[in-house]
Amino acid sequence: MKPSIPKGTRDFTPEQVAKRNYIFETIREVFIKYGYQPIETSAMENLATLTGKYGTEGDKLLFKVLNNGDFLAKADKEALAALDSAKAVKSLAKRGLRYDLTVPFARFVVMHRNDITFPFKRYQIQPVWRADRPQKGRYQEFYQCDVDVVGSNSLMYEAELVLIYDEVFTRLNIPVTIKYNNRKILEGIAEVAGISEQFVEMTTSIDKLDKIGMEGVRTDMENRGISTDAIDKIAGILSIGSIDEMRPLLSSSDAGRKGIEELEEMSQYLGTATAHNTVQFDCTLARGLSYYTGCIFEVTADNVKMGSIGGGGRYDDLTGTFGMKDVSGVGVSFGAERIYDVMQELDLFPKSDKSALKVLLIAYDKDSHHYAFSVTIKLREAGINADLYPTPTKIQKQMKYANARKVPFTIHIGGNEMERGKLTLKDMNTGVQSSLSLEEIINQLGDH
Amino acid sequence: MKPSIPKGTRDFTPEQVAKRNYIFETIREVFIKYGYQPIETSAMENLATLTGKYGTEGDKLLFKVLNNGDFLAKADKEALAALDSAKAVKSLAKRGLRYDLTVPFARFVVMHRNDITFPFKRYQIQPVWRADRPQKGRYQEFYQCDVDVVGSNSLMYEAELVLIYDEVFTRLNIPVTIKYNNRKILEGIAEVAGISEQFVEMTTSIDKLDKIGMEGVRTDMENRGISTDAIDKIAGILSIGSIDEMRPLLSSSDAGRKGIEELEEMSQYLGTATAHNTVQFDCTLARGLSYYTGCIFEVTADNVKMGSIGGGGRYDDLTGTFGMKDVSGVGVSFGAERIYDVMQELDLFPKSDKSALKVLLIAYDKDSHHYAFSVTIKLREAGINADLYPTPTKIQKQMKYANARKVPFTIHIGGNEMERGKLTLKDMNTGVQSSLSLEEIINQLGDH
Repeated sequence: MKPSIPKGTRDFTPEQVAKRNYIFETIREVFIKYGYQPIETSAMENLATLTGKYGTEGDKLLFKVLNNGDFLAKADKEALAALDSAKAVKSLAKRGLRYDLTVPFARFVVMHRNDITFPFKRYQIQPVWRADRPQKGRYQEFYQCDVDVVGSNSLMYEAELVLIYDEVFTRLNIPVTIKYNNRKILEGIAEVAGISEQFVEMTTSIDKLDKIGMEGVRTDMENRGISTDAIDKIAGILSIGSIDEMRPLLSSSDAGRKGIEELEEMSQYLGTATAHNTVQFDCTLARGLSYYTGCIFEVTADNVKMGSIGGGGRYDDLTGTFGMKDVSGVGVSFGAERIYDVMQELDLFPKSDKSALKVLLIAYDKDSHHYAFSVTIKLREAGINADLYPTPTKIQKQMKYANARKVPFTIHIGGNEMERGKLTLKDMNTGVQSSLSLEEIINQLGDH
Repeated sequence: MKPSIPKGTRDFTPEQVAKRNYIFETIREVFIKYGYQPIETSAMENLATLTGKYGTEGDKLLFKVLNNGDFLAKADKEALAALDSAKAVKSLAKRGLRYDLTVPFARFVVMHRNDITFPFKRYQIQPVWRADRPQKGRYQEFYQCDVDVVGSNSLMYEAELVLIYDEVFTRLNIPVTIKYNNRKILEGIAEVAGISEQFVEMTTSIDKLDKIGMEGVRTDMENRGISTDAIDKIAGILSIGSIDEMRPLLSSSDAGRKGIEELEEMSQYLGTATAHNTVQFDCTLARGLSYYTGCIFEVTADNVKMGSIGGGGRYDDLTGTFGMKDVSGVGVSFGAERIYDVMQELDLFPKSDKSALKVLLIAYDKDSHHYAFSVTIKLREAGINADLYPTPTKIQKQMKYANARKVPFTIHIGGNEMERGKLTLKDMNTGVQSSLSLEEIINQLGDH
């Protein structure tokens, strides 16, 4: 049989794993420095935990795990006979693969509530699964990197998360723009325009601004039944770029004033730091408003055409669905797969990889091969990533392997070298060969 | 609803993740030093890849992923009507969760054969899923850590893998015994005893030696139809502890001589190194003989009653089932879950955790809270894991949080501290407080 993998899934080669780990490790280091702690949850969740959390479309995209054993014995016979998949599935699968990290996190918080000290600052970097139609850049298994703090409504955390974005992307060498807004600002705008009851229509339109432009948004709002008067007012306010200019325009709205206040509080914290990237208020930012209740964030790379590579916000009721009320949280996530693509496109991955092989030993005959093995052991004891070609075969073949492994150095050992205790070290980049003792070699390679 | 997780699955708390990562990172570092490269494969594999690879029992333990959408429309209607689960499953699920890392690795090698340079040294640390009945210490989702080299039959790699075991367990502070044998030695014993055709019966019995003792093994062999004469011969040979004593006894068997030769070759490589643990030949070791064709390995912890915490061997046909013949490989795996239990039992996890929070800042009022936020940023810039309690609430409450987070230091900031530019650093272990500048604090905490 010719092997294959399911559509939308991927293998990762050593080179890809190294690059992916570079991203994950960079993000993880920053999370840790900011006092966040890791949790991990199982890939499988009870379907009762997942179903209904992601809307009707989301439910369809859940991967369901078939019950084990004689699963048809306990299945809904009527639904089977009627070929009613939607009905039958309940009796065929009680588990599913996690769809995101937010719902498992909420479940975790509720189940471990007695062991957790709030505010609970957690990060989680794990794969999720979605039965989306596979296409370029969209996979059925992909990683999410989430960082959240729950159990506090301090605006300090909003500032902290902006700084986390700033530091991660600075470390990754990706210049970005970090935009923020607040749901309450948008509520204020709707109120001031006299269309509070059309908030969803308004924000759905505004969310398309990037794609269809302001004229398109106007038309879209019109089509959604928002009056021309209101649209004029909204468009006028949306053209405003600063909180200071925004303040008087929203002064008549409770929500608007509260939104301004929250942004000012966040800015006060942010003002004590110096960001390396553009951090800007954008009142047209309207993402994720079905769950975000306060600040919202979005990050885009400055020099690449690509959607957002990060986003998040504050949500006031993470755990209510699991019976634990009034747990406010705020969090952001990193779009690791897109970040990978950006770094690939901008050639930002570091050229040297600490986990790569540093030196390959090459032996000329059987005796020197055993000797070379002992040298390999000593190099490893000195902390150097070292390997020996498995047999003392033709030098050409061994050198071919050295090239394929992209080692910067080779060490050549034959009877001559064994006798003199001097090994031949070859710099693969320059081609220069030197005759050195093992100690000298360890000193030289250890420094690199 | 009260949330729960599926039977046999687990959440990992921050403390558990830190401990698990300590094990994985230790193993990974050693793998890398020995020139192994990471690969990762998707959790979901095509069932065609998995089915039939793990025996009838294994097939039953595969988690199968229900096809998406209107899965009953394309289902085998006859099988459904007959409630024939075994038959119906083929039309209901085309994907499954990986059961181990070996089959995905074999598939990977075949699919990427043109991009791989052989010998291919790979490691893989990922979860696997098995629908085993959950019980103490046995989970439906657990990690495997595998390291293999394929495409070479050099006995150097057998020696290398023994040294990897030795180094990993030395680093983890777990004293172990690493036992090795060779399938060909067992074949030789069967041949010399004149029961080559009863090889499987003999080794199945021998494999129980640990549990039932030599008398038990004799009885078991008898019950399996092996003659008393043969049993006497076998028992006599099994009592032998060294290769030198074994050599003359197996000299009449081709397989036996080859086995001795292979062990000697491996020992020659091993002889150039100094192991920190007991490494010993054990001719009664008879694990995994349905797939291992040469050397076999097993590791047990010296000071704990527990099954093996590692094992492996050489297999001559990893990829044949996927149409790629004659790829010899050798590999070992680490039983990460059991290693965790051993380390827990022997209290071997390091007391200090580099990823833990180093200092919590405590502010007395709103102004000093903003100031404390800027201090937190500077501590983080200096590479110190630092956090600020989110609000300037009662000191007692903030100190309670500091205790719960187990921070070794707190920094206290009020109006007084802001004015003087001297902050109060408290050592949580000794209770000693000092009044220091931020620079002095960074120097002190950075050193720890």
